[in-house]
Amino acid sequence: MIGRVNHIALAVPDLAAAAAAYRDQLGASVGAPQALPQHGVTVIFIDTGNTKVELLEPLGDNSPIAAFLEKNPSGGMHHVCYEVADIADAIASLQASGARVLGDGTPKTGAHGNPVVFLHPKDFAGTLIELEQVPA
Amino acid sequence: MIGRVNHIALAVPDLAAAAAAYRDQLGASVGAPQALPQHGVTVIFIDTGNTKVELLEPLGDNSPIAAFLEKNPSGGMHHVCYEVADIADAIASLQASGARVLGDGTPKTGAHGNPVVFLHPKDFAGTLIELEQVPA
Repeated sequence: MIGRVNHIALAVPDLAAAAAAYRDQLGASVGAPQALPQHGVTVIFIDTGNTKVELLEPLGDNSPIAAFLEKNPSGGMHHVCYEVADIADAIASLQASGARVLGDGTPKTGAHGNPVVFLHPKDFAGTLIELEQVPA
Repeated sequence: MIGRVNHIALAVPDLAAAAAAYRDQLGASVGAPQALPQHGVTVIFIDTGNTKVELLEPLGDNSPIAAFLEKNPSGGMHHVCYEVADIADAIASLQASGARVLGDGTPKTGAHGNPVVFLHPKDFAGTLIELEQVPA
């Protein structure tokens, strides 16, 4: 079911500082910041050639990464996103297997404009997993 | 400097259970467990097509992931490994920029038989970064 790693998301307390470290110290290909108010984050994409790293900074009052950064004030690894061909099939199969899809179990539109869901980290050894339906 | 994401490492308390979840529930391409006593872990590789996910379970008394699992008993995301062409150059450049290379600052032989170093997570927004020299 799961395909490629679409991105690895890292929550950071200071987006400009993190972007500078990846660009200037690690020599990474770091994009420009994009404010996504409907997702409660400002994001910077890092293109690693085979996948992407996303640096996420909270934006607004109800950011989905605010609680994570309260627990991890220096920042940290937040989730891994895998591509799936058909998210409705993936949800049905996962729920039939007993895995918990977060929220109301229906896909939302993610940061890339594609349907996404998140899976309960307790069902996957503590890792928050995002599934994103990516057109073939 | 950094190139492809070589792997994403996830520390897990129960390797067989985690492997079953990735294989049976997520339909991932999950390999066989490999005991690496010199690295203090048993590892299972998941091939996602564009990169690898490594599930790590502690092995022996001085596992480098034991403390992480004490803090995160359900498991969690442990580090991201990037490929570099020349690890000596990478270390020199990073140290000149003020970044801290863990241990004595010299490469060790990693789980894939290549030279590796780890960078201090506080210098990179809370993410533990491994650099692995991969032959071009």
